[in-house]
Amino acid sequence: ARSYSITLLPGDGIGPEVVAVAKDVLSVAGSKEGVELRFREMLMGGAALDAAGVPLPDETLAAARASDAILLGAIGGYKWDNNEKHLKPETGLLNIRAGLGVFANLRPATVLPQLVDASTLKKEVAEGVDIMVVRELTGGIYFGKPRGFGTNDKGEETGFNTEIYSAAEIDRIARVAFEVARKRGGKLCSVDKANVLEASMLWRKRVTAIASEFPDVELSHMYVDNAAMQLVRNPKQFDTIVTNNIFGDILSDEASMITGSIGMLPSASVGESGPGLFEPIHGSAPDIAGQDKANPLATILSAAMLLKYGLGVESAAKRIEAAVTETLDNGFRTGDIYSPGTIVLYLHINYEYLDSL
Amino acid sequence: ARSYSITLLPGDGIGPEVVAVAKDVLSVAGSKEGVELRFREMLMGGAALDAAGVPLPDETLAAARASDAILLGAIGGYKWDNNEKHLKPETGLLNIRAGLGVFANLRPATVLPQLVDASTLKKEVAEGVDIMVVRELTGGIYFGKPRGFGTNDKGEETGFNTEIYSAAEIDRIARVAFEVARKRGGKLCSVDKANVLEASMLWRKRVTAIASEFPDVELSHMYVDNAAMQLVRNPKQFDTIVTNNIFGDILSDEASMITGSIGMLPSASVGESGPGLFEPIHGSAPDIAGQDKANPLATILSAAMLLKYGLGVESAAKRIEAAVTETLDNGFRTGDIYSPGTIVLYLHINYEYLDSL
Ligand SMILES: CC(C)[C@H](C(=O)O)[C@@H](O)C(=O)O
Ligand SMILES: CC(C)[C@H](C(=O)O)[C@@H](O)C(=O)O
Repeated sequence: ARSYSITLLPGDGIGPEVVAVAKDVLSVAGSKEGVELRFREMLMGGAALDAAGVPLPDETLAAARASDAILLGAIGGYKWDNNEKHLKPETGLLNIRAGLGVFANLRPATVLPQLVDASTLKKEVAEGVDIMVVRELTGGIYFGKPRGFGTNDKGEETGFNTEIYSAAEIDRIARVAFEVARKRGGKLCSVDKANVLEASMLWRKRVTAIASEFPDVELSHMYVDNAAMQLVRNPKQFDTIVTNNIFGDILSDEASMITGSIGMLPSASVGESGPGLFEPIHGSAPDIAGQDKANPLATILSAAMLLKYGLGVESAAKRIEAAVTETLDNGFRTGDIYSPGTIVLYLHINYEYLDSL
Repeated sequence: ARSYSITLLPGDGIGPEVVAVAKDVLSVAGSKEGVELRFREMLMGGAALDAAGVPLPDETLAAARASDAILLGAIGGYKWDNNEKHLKPETGLLNIRAGLGVFANLRPATVLPQLVDASTLKKEVAEGVDIMVVRELTGGIYFGKPRGFGTNDKGEETGFNTEIYSAAEIDRIARVAFEVARKRGGKLCSVDKANVLEASMLWRKRVTAIASEFPDVELSHMYVDNAAMQLVRNPKQFDTIVTNNIFGDILSDEASMITGSIGMLPSASVGESGPGLFEPIHGSAPDIAGQDKANPLATILSAAMLLKYGLGVESAAKRIEAAVTETLDNGFRTGDIYSPGTIVLYLHINYEYLDSL
């Protein structure tokens, strides 16, 4: 039997709850497809700060690197909000992304027919939205140097960061995005600010150059301010979007809210080789942690992405997706996606239900 | 009688059409309040490129500086899209902002009761939205140095920009934003990415420090990705938003689309002293230029902002705002905000109507 090792990073807030559910779902779905999954739980984020004094212990990164895929819950919480930069939970997240070299972050934003009413957009605008945002994840202003604090020639304190991309960084994320678009609707929209920023001018030039390798994909370009508008005006115009780290951070969150069900949305971060990192796009929601209220579906769907993109066990991924659809079709909901006529399930019940996949 | 000089920068696309209407509206509204307005039209954007080879001729900047306020239409068009950076219409816009030192860009996003159906958001979500985005306009990544193209240590081409703010730059925009919030709902939300960027950490620190000067304003902080979501989820939670140049570019466009009537939204850019720059937030819309279809109201409302914030003639500004409300109440619309039961007016008729203010 095929056997894979999975690193679990439950993290903070609702992270442990939703990862526990997704772990069992993974086990069952795997075993039904003859795949054995071994799990190892490691510390990250605030949990690691409390236990080990750093947001990403060396053993965690080593274990993650040595495994076949990583499932992350969520990190962060009020408790650590005022920590210095190197002691922030978020720094652990940035370091594991960089440490694993997972430069391509895939963030689907799909409006499920069962949940179209959850969107704040009018039904006719939200219905059928199915966008994949491909966000560059290990470059740009998140990691660019020089960065820090200084003093300008007037003696005033300054804070600064560097937005920088190399042709090679752009080429590799563009190729991933074209591949993704090819398997979806065949349309790729590259988002930049090439009317102002040199980093974006190079972005546009390289994406345009790579397009010649994918004659079957239709490429368009859009400025980021316009993209932020068009996502509200007519999100259905988008199929696949590719953009840099910071614009991807903003636009993928905007796109996810357009679906109205942020507790439903998974993500996959993959590199050229080595294990991928899979996580729900929602945060650690400290205000509802431990109350059995969190929606586990984003993490369960991240587990499906782990099986599909991380391990290549597509049959087990399909099994999970079908179970989620069935659960929703049967009217089961968590509080965040409740609407009249549906049944609110607490997480542990939901878990039992999905366990019977 | 009081007398002021106004520089008109019609620019490109629909710019000349909408500026012509707003000019006459300004004249009439001014004269009814005993204020004489003298106009001088100057070249900017693509029009200046075609006539003078640069997007912002020296005489234009000099005339603008010497006047009491500037009204800009819109700039840009397909024709100049592939120009080199220093020959782009957009560069003219950035240069006039910097040249005038107008560091505070005020962008209201208001859902008018008559136009609530124009929003793609559900009525109960859009109704009553009234946000003012205060965007820093002459700093950050738009102007930061170093910027350009280079080669990294692997010999690959790079493109780079610098996001940089000094304490003084943040303090002055924060003070403008607190003043604005004080005159509105008394709530200011500062948007940054202080969990990742040093420039944002300084931003948050300084905005928090300036807050002590405004004990009557309630300050909150939000990460930019969350703000992009919250604008879709529940825009009514916002009163005044203050943010940096690039985040303000993205979020103000998103907010404007939430109102559904981007052809309606004005903006004001002001500095510490000297004339302010007033312009609609929409673009030059080359596809409908010269067809008598453009909505002149964003420029007319920018003219009202010019009277209020630029010249301090609030009575004339109120007159224009009342005329716009009356026009809408009477069911007159341009095509972009048409809904069944309203009457589509072409620009020249609209103009005659508003002329009777
Ligand atoms: C927590 C934060 C550092 C992170 C990011 O900005 O990448 C988050 O917003 C995300 O999108 O995964
Ligand atoms: C045209 C462009 C340079 C400009 C900007 O990015 O500032 C525009 O988008 C705006 O918001 O006024």
